[in-house]
Amino acid sequence: MPPSAAASPAPESRPAVPKPGAAAGVPDLADRFARRTDGMTASEIRALFAVASRPEVVSLAGGMPNLAALPLDDLAAEVAKLIAQDGQVALQYGSAQGVPLLREQITEVMAAEGIRAHAEDVVVTVGSQMALDLVTRIFCDPGDIVLAEGPSYVGALGSFAAYQAQVLHVAMDDDGIVPAALAEALNRLAEAGRRAKFLYTVPNFHNPAGVTLAVARRAEVLELCRRHDVLVVEDNPYGLLGFDGQTYPALRSTDPDNVIYLGSFSKTFASGLRVGWALAPPSVRDKLVLAAESATLCPPTFNQMMVSRYLAGHDWRGQVKSFREVYRERRDAMLSALGTYLPAGCRWTHPDGGFYVWLTVPEGVDTKAMLPRAVRARVAYASGTGFYADGLGSRQLRLSYCYPTPERITEGVRRLADVLNAELDVLHTFGTPDRAAARLAAGGARRGPQSPSPDTT
Amino acid sequence: MPPSAAASPAPESRPAVPKPGAAAGVPDLADRFARRTDGMTASEIRALFAVASRPEVVSLAGGMPNLAALPLDDLAAEVAKLIAQDGQVALQYGSAQGVPLLREQITEVMAAEGIRAHAEDVVVTVGSQMALDLVTRIFCDPGDIVLAEGPSYVGALGSFAAYQAQVLHVAMDDDGIVPAALAEALNRLAEAGRRAKFLYTVPNFHNPAGVTLAVARRAEVLELCRRHDVLVVEDNPYGLLGFDGQTYPALRSTDPDNVIYLGSFSKTFASGLRVGWALAPPSVRDKLVLAAESATLCPPTFNQMMVSRYLAGHDWRGQVKSFREVYRERRDAMLSALGTYLPAGCRWTHPDGGFYVWLTVPEGVDTKAMLPRAVRARVAYASGTGFYADGLGSRQLRLSYCYPTPERITEGVRRLADVLNAELDVLHTFGTPDRAAARLAAGGARRGPQSPSPDTT
Repeated sequence: MPPSAAASPAPESRPAVPKPGAAAGVPDLADRFARRTDGMTASEIRALFAVASRPEVVSLAGGMPNLAALPLDDLAAEVAKLIAQDGQVALQYGSAQGVPLLREQITEVMAAEGIRAHAEDVVVTVGSQMALDLVTRIFCDPGDIVLAEGPSYVGALGSFAAYQAQVLHVAMDDDGIVPAALAEALNRLAEAGRRAKFLYTVPNFHNPAGVTLAVARRAEVLELCRRHDVLVVEDNPYGLLGFDGQTYPALRSTDPDNVIYLGSFSKTFASGLRVGWALAPPSVRDKLVLAAESATLCPPTFNQMMVSRYLAGHDWRGQVKSFREVYRERRDAMLSALGTYLPAGCRWTHPDGGFYVWLTVPEGVDTKAMLPRAVRARVAYASGTGFYADGLGSRQLRLSYCYPTPERITEGVRRLADVLNAELDVLHTFGTPDRAAARLAAGGARRGPQSPSPDTT
Repeated sequence: MPPSAAASPAPESRPAVPKPGAAAGVPDLADRFARRTDGMTASEIRALFAVASRPEVVSLAGGMPNLAALPLDDLAAEVAKLIAQDGQVALQYGSAQGVPLLREQITEVMAAEGIRAHAEDVVVTVGSQMALDLVTRIFCDPGDIVLAEGPSYVGALGSFAAYQAQVLHVAMDDDGIVPAALAEALNRLAEAGRRAKFLYTVPNFHNPAGVTLAVARRAEVLELCRRHDVLVVEDNPYGLLGFDGQTYPALRSTDPDNVIYLGSFSKTFASGLRVGWALAPPSVRDKLVLAAESATLCPPTFNQMMVSRYLAGHDWRGQVKSFREVYRERRDAMLSALGTYLPAGCRWTHPDGGFYVWLTVPEGVDTKAMLPRAVRARVAYASGTGFYADGLGSRQLRLSYCYPTPERITEGVRRLADVLNAELDVLHTFGTPDRAAARLAAGGARRGPQSPSPDTT
């Protein structure tokens, strides 16, 4: 099931009205799309971006990195030099696997989390989203099973849906994946004669859950997957953003043959360059390169060389430290505001790195149904159902603190608390939470998250 | 069938030797890949790049645009300004559909070939290869049929294979697709109760055939596809590179509702930026945006803004004219050398734009088997079989004149003529061409194109 199967109608459902002047009318294409397009629906998060980008709304919904700390003048000079000196190479096609020097440098970046790797096993991609999409492409036939944390990264769920894979969520707690839950899922599959293609996990500063897989659990997770012949896809965009400068040993560092590692410069340098990578065992790497070639021929040479020069000529570790400070200050503001303003019965995670807090609201409140009222109260969040492939998450929501100022974060949480209190008032008035929730959900479904109605706040 | 099914073994076939120290040995992944990976094999062209990139080899094999005419200093200044002034936007995530201003400008670029379009129907992609891949993704279930010219662009065949589509080639002559052949293919499918998902065509300055679809044929091709409810995918990377500055009316310009148009800045500006696009009817556009989101989240903002500034602030039409002159001079050198050096019995196309000449050699010569001997004689080409999904093309080869200097092109053709003459000598010695061809082909298959053997030249 797609991550947002319950969302508003997909945009393609506009009726094919014949236009005057068209040769023979507008062809009805409904019966021509591939079956995999059934799983392609607009994510709730994408629908949100339009609404939440109004300046008066405090958006705690998006995951845009905060680039204010970037040294733009230095970068401008660097990129000018790149074009003037190496333009004939930088503006030309390159190899599908990526620029060799950058792949070398990527192995150095990964060394910070204990990974020893060869540049020849790195495949540069257009953001790590592309790596994730290609991994799914080479492993998943329709109906294949993928294990993923519940909740899970919405972009991963999108790729799994696009290749018609079936997602089985594995429970998490404050220490990440619960090994007993993983064992149970693996055993259940084995008993049914099935095997998952891989476990997809974000071990560090999880998106959206804001938790980190405890170091003591890592060997157990790896061992369970090994024993069941299930690959591990380790997605680690935030690993260097631990607020105390702490890092955790990558899963890849202890099981290089059974882990496909995905990395990204989107959070440690610049997301708009779209430079990510996969590190994979040779047999997987070869398939990834072939798949990458038919996906885009090659990643942009220019962007790769820019990242390469940045890594070589700048104090990139110092820059990551600056980013960490930006995010820590914002995390502090959010946790403090949550503690100050939120009504009783709420609980939330306490991230020590990354971008996100995962909030569970009191029973009876439906975060998706509440969203239009929140946006009308000028605060936006990502409701929890978008992070599950199985309809769970209606009592959860994701708050991101990466982008707004600390003052705006505090104000946003204050507004959210008001909305929650109003919601709880309504619940109280209607009597049992269940009846109120049903009524609220019906209202939400009727209007959809993009159409806040003035009479409901 | 993949474009290079008969090529040397795919790189992933290296045996999985257990390494000492691995937790439980190297997992054997052979049974875990998706079925679609069967169609992913290294293209002959890719294998060639490694061999043909030695400096002593004149490569007439690749399709790398010639960027020597680019004004690098101007571009360096422009890109520095972009970072310094707009870095916070350029280095940030953007929308999956692409930067709105660039999409507006793309409609102006397309106007040169008669296309009237709205920016809202343009989807920016990471090169037009990605557009092609996404179009295949949203339309092709395994076993679906795609019509394509024979020969056809190798990157398209790669994408079709990656989605397990079946390619049915349609014959071309010097005026492009032969309408009668298209009609026959469509009728044959209809009689079998099948329908192709789309016709994939490169109407202008075809890769690899070097021919252009005659204007008089365009309405007929469109009408045939309309009548059979078959979409047209018009891939037009070379349309502005007509050597006399001539352009042809795009198929999209007369049938906007049944044509998906693919464009690219790789040949008119810079391939290393990977900026291409699709223009599609709204229902298709919506699916493309959703598919693009799971493929890469968004195309690189930075690259899009750089192209946008280039289009706005530079004489891009003048630059395209400079490129045309570069390529015309090289085309002239190639045609002149072919006429001077090639043995009797060869025939070739006479492109009036683009990058390629398609050469048919005398009966009995196998261009794939000959390739190792050609590379040993220090000239490389792309053998014809890579451009067919059905095993044809063994008497053809593609020569590209885009990149080398005119002097190198002349020398390369001279060397090719020597190789062909030697080949014909061998044929003469062995008696009938058929027996010789069989023997040559066996030799070629045994060694593969990457292992020229010293005793065969």
